[in-house]
Amino acid sequence: MAKVAIMGFGTVGSGVYDIIEQNSEKLCRNTYGEEISLKYILDIRDFSDHPRKEIFTKDFDVILNDPEVTVVAEAMGGLHPAYEFTKSLLLAGKSVVTSNKELVATYGTELLETASANNVNYMFEASVGGGIPVIRPLHQDLTANKITRIAGILNGTTNYILYQMFTKNQSFDDALVDAQEKGYAEKNPAADIEGHDACRKIAILASLASGKAVDYRDIETEGIVNITLDDVKYAEKINSVIKLIGYADFLENGKIYSVVSPMIISSSSPLSGVDDVFNAIMVTGNCVGNLMFYGAGAGKLPTASAVVADVVDCVRHRERPKKIGWDKAEGNIMASKDDVEFAYFIRTEDSEDAVKAAFGDVNFISSNDNERVFITQKLSGTQMDKALSELSSIKTSIRVLD
Amino acid sequence: MAKVAIMGFGTVGSGVYDIIEQNSEKLCRNTYGEEISLKYILDIRDFSDHPRKEIFTKDFDVILNDPEVTVVAEAMGGLHPAYEFTKSLLLAGKSVVTSNKELVATYGTELLETASANNVNYMFEASVGGGIPVIRPLHQDLTANKITRIAGILNGTTNYILYQMFTKNQSFDDALVDAQEKGYAEKNPAADIEGHDACRKIAILASLASGKAVDYRDIETEGIVNITLDDVKYAEKINSVIKLIGYADFLENGKIYSVVSPMIISSSSPLSGVDDVFNAIMVTGNCVGNLMFYGAGAGKLPTASAVVADVVDCVRHRERPKKIGWDKAEGNIMASKDDVEFAYFIRTEDSEDAVKAAFGDVNFISSNDNERVFITQKLSGTQMDKALSELSSIKTSIRVLD
Repeated sequence: MAKVAIMGFGTVGSGVYDIIEQNSEKLCRNTYGEEISLKYILDIRDFSDHPRKEIFTKDFDVILNDPEVTVVAEAMGGLHPAYEFTKSLLLAGKSVVTSNKELVATYGTELLETASANNVNYMFEASVGGGIPVIRPLHQDLTANKITRIAGILNGTTNYILYQMFTKNQSFDDALVDAQEKGYAEKNPAADIEGHDACRKIAILASLASGKAVDYRDIETEGIVNITLDDVKYAEKINSVIKLIGYADFLENGKIYSVVSPMIISSSSPLSGVDDVFNAIMVTGNCVGNLMFYGAGAGKLPTASAVVADVVDCVRHRERPKKIGWDKAEGNIMASKDDVEFAYFIRTEDSEDAVKAAFGDVNFISSNDNERVFITQKLSGTQMDKALSELSSIKTSIRVLD
Repeated sequence: MAKVAIMGFGTVGSGVYDIIEQNSEKLCRNTYGEEISLKYILDIRDFSDHPRKEIFTKDFDVILNDPEVTVVAEAMGGLHPAYEFTKSLLLAGKSVVTSNKELVATYGTELLETASANNVNYMFEASVGGGIPVIRPLHQDLTANKITRIAGILNGTTNYILYQMFTKNQSFDDALVDAQEKGYAEKNPAADIEGHDACRKIAILASLASGKAVDYRDIETEGIVNITLDDVKYAEKINSVIKLIGYADFLENGKIYSVVSPMIISSSSPLSGVDDVFNAIMVTGNCVGNLMFYGAGAGKLPTASAVVADVVDCVRHRERPKKIGWDKAEGNIMASKDDVEFAYFIRTEDSEDAVKAAFGDVNFISSNDNERVFITQKLSGTQMDKALSELSSIKTSIRVLD
């Protein structure tokens, strides 16, 4: 019998509760027959009316000091006290699983090290892509591959907003209000629309794929707040859509280039068909080529089902923890903007001649009274900066995903 | 040090060789540091010019009787002697991994039982979807879910042919010749175009998802040989494509409905964008909703990378084998055609009145001098048979995927 605790009885935590209570028999199949039993739920709120009120506690030390508890699901969110609690539990020899991307992106390296030193697991499948299996497949199924690139639609809120702009012709502002009304966007939507959420997720994926800690603060991050319906119209004209992409390129020189930004995606890419609030992660391996993992990137039961899969994996691997994670990076592992090249979609008020002087011979998507719209050749960061500096107006500049 | 053998040095086997020889250091990361070393390659052909000629053998008993060899990758294909060799190896306490869908679909239940009785692993990630991780994710990542449906594009050859018909306006016959010229289709293409390959793969997925052996011989299987450019034209008119789908529905009564057939797929489904020779498997779980796994369904290195991931997993789990598999089914687990309902796309020469008399009030996609084209309501198998019997001509009848 494996005794488990849940910390945080919000959306994800209550989903974990529902799944464990309703599926304990099925879960046994994957724990070599060992039953999983919930012993505690930690939450500062009052749940004295709950049918299992006897397992609720407001005192973290009850869980920490109970030697019977071997696996804890952290679904509190935020950095504190989630970090302190997780660290204490790992030090006490308990495995911890989490859906908390902020915590994993910020303290993951340290917590993985603590887990390893104490011969327990720290697992985080639900921290990226909600219910989509991606962390474990990257680690296990792609073990024979060198990962060369990851490009993911990692944030459902922004994907919904862009989808509305493309399919309903809504402006960014209207689509945001729509997303807020549907509960897809927070009242303060900055973390989503400015790309910070996607940034933490691509940092986790890049760390896992490279085996070296990628600091999310080193990733240039641009949101979707400047995308307009005119951009949408021109993207459609070239059979493309615009998606917010968390991107990581693992270069042959061992460095990693990572960025979060809107990108132009051709309709021939499977990423282009990822609609509504769905997420998808395209992973490129040197043996396997392009793989895509698609599904619900958030939501109570999808996310909770990923948390529970980690709980089961921890129970299976109590005696011999898995090494799903990464090490501290030594020196600077991040590539510069000159180590990679992108083509760019650009809108400017400058003349065709000015455009050609700056960017060479480009094909114009449109050239009318108001503006020139075109796709550049592939350019390094410095080449792009130089060319842009030669124009007097830039209305839009969006990377094009290969 | 884990000593490994490869049986069969064809496309997949030589890919396994390449990956193990070139990536042994990286593979160590996931074997708790244990190195993987190739000790034998079994093939009846002569490889005396090969740089590692000393590890080639034509004698299976050398592998069987070497106690150092603990994991064997079977990449021979076909049923015999792959079955006899695999069985002997498992009985001798060696784990076996395979890309051989025919063997897994035909003898998988017995081989899984033998593996379990001998405390070793029998793994088959590469048998479905080539390099796409789907077997392990179904087992591990979706452990908290009851799988309710699987719908997969499981055969690259047929997907290529249909893709050519849709995008190049090629007839079925021309697209088949094109596929043969490109090496995507065999000279005798029956196993692909008649759906037998997809049938074995959906049988494996359905067995794994339900935990009970689904016999591929119980799955109604229809290929794509009757699909015409007229069908393509009408599918486009309703914003849809036609894909060969391996389908399994896990019903609330515990029974399984499974079929392989062409299906009409709306452009709103992510399956519709799976082009060229790619495969994709849509898995629906009661917690996670729809997930899709997309990638290369065949090819040397993609398939070999899945085989090697299984080798690594076997090395990790030598002492405590994983239970990825299913049990013998007791009694009849297959649902009848009346336990499920589909809408159908139909083309007939009968009159509108005759169609309405048989199918009720339907919306016609087209009604011209030659034919009536329409989508039916959702019908059970018996309802469909009855309605069809009331028409005097049926040019096409294709299921519509929800």
